[in-house]
Amino acid sequence: MTATLVDIRRGAYYDSAFLMQLQRTLSDLPGVQDAGVIMGTPTNKELLAAIDLLPPEAQSAKPDDLLIVVRAEDETAARDALARVDDLLTRKQTAHSAEYRPQSLETAAAMLPDAAWVLVSVAGRYAAVVARNALRLGKHVFLFSDNVPVEEEIKLKAMAAAKGLLVMGPDCGTALIRGIGLGFANKVRLGPIGVVAAAGTGLQQVTARIHQLGGGVSHGIGTGGRDLTEKVGAATFKQGIDVLARDPDTKVIVLVSKPPAPKVAEEMLQLARSAPKPVVINFIGRPASTWQMDNLYFATGLDDAARLAVELANDEGRTTKDGGEPAHLGRFAPSQRYLRGLFSGGTLAYEAQYILQGYLPKVWANAPLDKADRIPNSLVSQEHTIIDLGEDEFTVGRLHPMMDNELRIRRLMQEAADPETAVIMLDVVIGYGSHPNPASELAPAIAKAKATAAAAGRTLEVVAVVTGTDEDPQNFGSQIEQLRAAGAWVNASNEAVVRYAGRILRALNPQSAIRNPQPPIDLATLQRPLSAINVGLESFAENLIAQGVPAIQVDWRPPAGGNEKLMMILERMKGN
Amino acid sequence: MTATLVDIRRGAYYDSAFLMQLQRTLSDLPGVQDAGVIMGTPTNKELLAAIDLLPPEAQSAKPDDLLIVVRAEDETAARDALARVDDLLTRKQTAHSAEYRPQSLETAAAMLPDAAWVLVSVAGRYAAVVARNALRLGKHVFLFSDNVPVEEEIKLKAMAAAKGLLVMGPDCGTALIRGIGLGFANKVRLGPIGVVAAAGTGLQQVTARIHQLGGGVSHGIGTGGRDLTEKVGAATFKQGIDVLARDPDTKVIVLVSKPPAPKVAEEMLQLARSAPKPVVINFIGRPASTWQMDNLYFATGLDDAARLAVELANDEGRTTKDGGEPAHLGRFAPSQRYLRGLFSGGTLAYEAQYILQGYLPKVWANAPLDKADRIPNSLVSQEHTIIDLGEDEFTVGRLHPMMDNELRIRRLMQEAADPETAVIMLDVVIGYGSHPNPASELAPAIAKAKATAAAAGRTLEVVAVVTGTDEDPQNFGSQIEQLRAAGAWVNASNEAVVRYAGRILRALNPQSAIRNPQPPIDLATLQRPLSAINVGLESFAENLIAQGVPAIQVDWRPPAGGNEKLMMILERMKGN
Repeated sequence: MTATLVDIRRGAYYDSAFLMQLQRTLSDLPGVQDAGVIMGTPTNKELLAAIDLLPPEAQSAKPDDLLIVVRAEDETAARDALARVDDLLTRKQTAHSAEYRPQSLETAAAMLPDAAWVLVSVAGRYAAVVARNALRLGKHVFLFSDNVPVEEEIKLKAMAAAKGLLVMGPDCGTALIRGIGLGFANKVRLGPIGVVAAAGTGLQQVTARIHQLGGGVSHGIGTGGRDLTEKVGAATFKQGIDVLARDPDTKVIVLVSKPPAPKVAEEMLQLARSAPKPVVINFIGRPASTWQMDNLYFATGLDDAARLAVELANDEGRTTKDGGEPAHLGRFAPSQRYLRGLFSGGTLAYEAQYILQGYLPKVWANAPLDKADRIPNSLVSQEHTIIDLGEDEFTVGRLHPMMDNELRIRRLMQEAADPETAVIMLDVVIGYGSHPNPASELAPAIAKAKATAAAAGRTLEVVAVVTGTDEDPQNFGSQIEQLRAAGAWVNASNEAVVRYAGRILRALNPQSAIRNPQPPIDLATLQRPLSAINVGLESFAENLIAQGVPAIQVDWRPPAGGNEKLMMILERMKGN
Repeated sequence: MTATLVDIRRGAYYDSAFLMQLQRTLSDLPGVQDAGVIMGTPTNKELLAAIDLLPPEAQSAKPDDLLIVVRAEDETAARDALARVDDLLTRKQTAHSAEYRPQSLETAAAMLPDAAWVLVSVAGRYAAVVARNALRLGKHVFLFSDNVPVEEEIKLKAMAAAKGLLVMGPDCGTALIRGIGLGFANKVRLGPIGVVAAAGTGLQQVTARIHQLGGGVSHGIGTGGRDLTEKVGAATFKQGIDVLARDPDTKVIVLVSKPPAPKVAEEMLQLARSAPKPVVINFIGRPASTWQMDNLYFATGLDDAARLAVELANDEGRTTKDGGEPAHLGRFAPSQRYLRGLFSGGTLAYEAQYILQGYLPKVWANAPLDKADRIPNSLVSQEHTIIDLGEDEFTVGRLHPMMDNELRIRRLMQEAADPETAVIMLDVVIGYGSHPNPASELAPAIAKAKATAAAAGRTLEVVAVVTGTDEDPQNFGSQIEQLRAAGAWVNASNEAVVRYAGRILRALNPQSAIRNPQPPIDLATLQRPLSAINVGLESFAENLIAQGVPAIQVDWRPPAGGNEKLMMILERMKGN
């Protein structure tokens, strides 16, 4: 008759790799059918119950207890197996006696003074203590451990930020520093793409795909999944963006995470925008509202993020699709701040408003995206305004503005006379049905509008999209030439024209800038050859050594014999 | 001293091209400083007021009244100008007396029996009457007129649908039929891209950009801006998708509009999905939640829509990035309907849920996108379920599933034994830190799981993403080979694997299909050489003739002398 016997060791700590080995060793003993060696959490106990390994006496095991269950052919075999446990546990203790291992971080740091990094993967309840210790020693922390309370994370990250150090995690599975993988990481070509990612597999998938596409990675900075919550405030993410923005080896930045809290997202995007290089963003599950905005590129998934990053890295130095840089802004008078869009095409006006959302806080319109932005009086612009002159209100008993330019020219003069107008945008839609030569009337009007503004000491920027083809009856090329000769900035893409205008207007209406985190991370700590101290899973140190990285394993034991109260008292004595 | 004089003609109708000409003629008369010739709508009167052309006696003009205002150097000059009005109005009447023009649609239709199209651009209050008349004659209607009540639009479109005819509009600025432009349209190369667009300039911008990129357009169908409201229910849009889906000359479909009402969007997308060709969608201002889903491609703007369409048209016949077609579905047992995703990577699990939103109504998860989808018990799957085994609840005192496959293999067997499981998805993340050869344990388990299901008369599909690089210590290629040899469908892209699974699962869980509009539009009416009847703006007929299209201009006058009551009575006598 089978027998299931239980051994509970109160408050015992062993690392999880060892527990897995112990379970396998027990399972392989003669007569043993199945064995479970786990910490006594509710989930773990349920998992044991599901495989019929949770007799009533095992129920009392607590999350801090080591629970050993053996099911064997008979009681003797089960008893024999449990009797081996002490021996197996002792064997572990002495396994590494041959080589000397420091038992504290301090000793390890003295042995390997160049080590800028400490990897921490001890059980969650001890992890904050070890991480804090590493920060005190001036080390960056790769914090693999999970089950660390968020309050601890906030404290650790505040401490790290004050010291210009990184805490990647908790629950950070992956990082790549100068091509060296920490924790779980793929061997990825060194290259010009820097990645900041909240969680481990996002970073692994994106960097692996970058490698598969022929690209390479400078650094991959993990933050832990909770970093982007409002509570934690993207502390590590912001440091990551900042350091990659400054890193001369990084040409393109990729940001990957679940959608952050809206306030946090806004701050991150502002910071990303200030980076002097392209930034690819994939907030997984947050629809991309546009594919590009200045130096920001929005990806629709992990694959797409990798593809975009590789393309941008190959494209370095070339002009982006965002168009040329707007000319010197100093030419505008201080009063000139606003856009006036005078459209004949409703859809062009609509798309313009949509794209401008990325540049301006509010655009008034007679056909607005949102009712709240409806202009009180279509005949009088206020602040940024886009008027569709093809709307019903303007076309009763009157030719459409594509056929008759009169109304639009009158309005153009009205806007040009307004000292607050900086940019006027027009659409010129040619083709059958439209005016036979709209530029012949609009171009002189543009020239006159610019002259009027100039006479009053202002510089009026006029931009125009020309919609048409080279086979249209009006002569597409001549329309563009006439408008350009009158001083307008012209393009055949509505999007390109709107973005050009958007960049000027945003520059004329600066919003409060985000200050970079203080003090900054010392770039040199990421650039010089890596060496590291490992506390926790031994395989992490072995992997570093396999990558040619000097690494020391700390033979770590819970302080105060694992007594948490005593541990806290000891820590408080150390101070920060 | 200047004098401003007014002439109001009650209930008079002239087309707006004529009014523009009259205004210009009056302005050019000796002594005249400015003139306004408009219908007396509030906006028009405000516009006159803004240029000081609205003396008190002009205020009384009503929207149906023709309002003529002349400002001249002195009263004599103003009087002389107004005295010319009758003469000018009469001249218009007789201008075309040389050529014979039918005065009714019926006569025009008899003169040009092949004409499948009637273009209507008379003033809005008369437009529905003319359009209805055209439908009675069995003609498609291009309805340029705006200011048509939505109730009229609904009635017209219901009448058209019942007859298998199109009503493009009201307020439809543009259409292209076999390369021939109706209304405002660019001369665009004939080609394999068919477009349905709500408004005029969206269609013009996209078709012009397609031409600029070297592509060509089969048909461009306009619907009018209100077509996608819930009231109108996308009546014309659905007909447009249906006819382009059936048209053998159209290889790629493009849909452009402002974001439709959600219910309408859902119906449209289902209809688009049933089209046996790629469909590019740009709901301007609605963020694209994914860049591709089966045959649907989501563009981020008008430019992007044009680019995608041209790429797809050039790529015809090649496999899309969505991966191959899933194998024959009949192999599944009737009980098999659900997905079970067993992940080790949290971000991969998260992205999977996000992508599956496009395929399945609900996916349960222990780390869900939305709290409402949180699975009650992480240890027991229900319906479609995605479990992240790397979540904290599973990793207390236990190795991460990337290092230790035991828990996942147990769960794999549990899912394989469930008769409701159709597809099991796994992620296999290799690299430093991960298990040295995960496939050596997972592949036999997969083979066993498939065999177990087969023994019970079921076919289990196992799909896996392998995240890694060719330089990883585990041997990337060998991992993939081992999994494939065990019968798994494997890819290095998480997105590709999820979409493959998604297509199978959607096919196993069919939703109610949308029936195509009845009766269908007769394709032949779009394919045969165009000829048309024009009622309204003469330039529209001139443009058709310039394109080599037989066209007849109707010398249209408002029925019943413009008396609307009498007009309604007359119409009711005709019936439908």
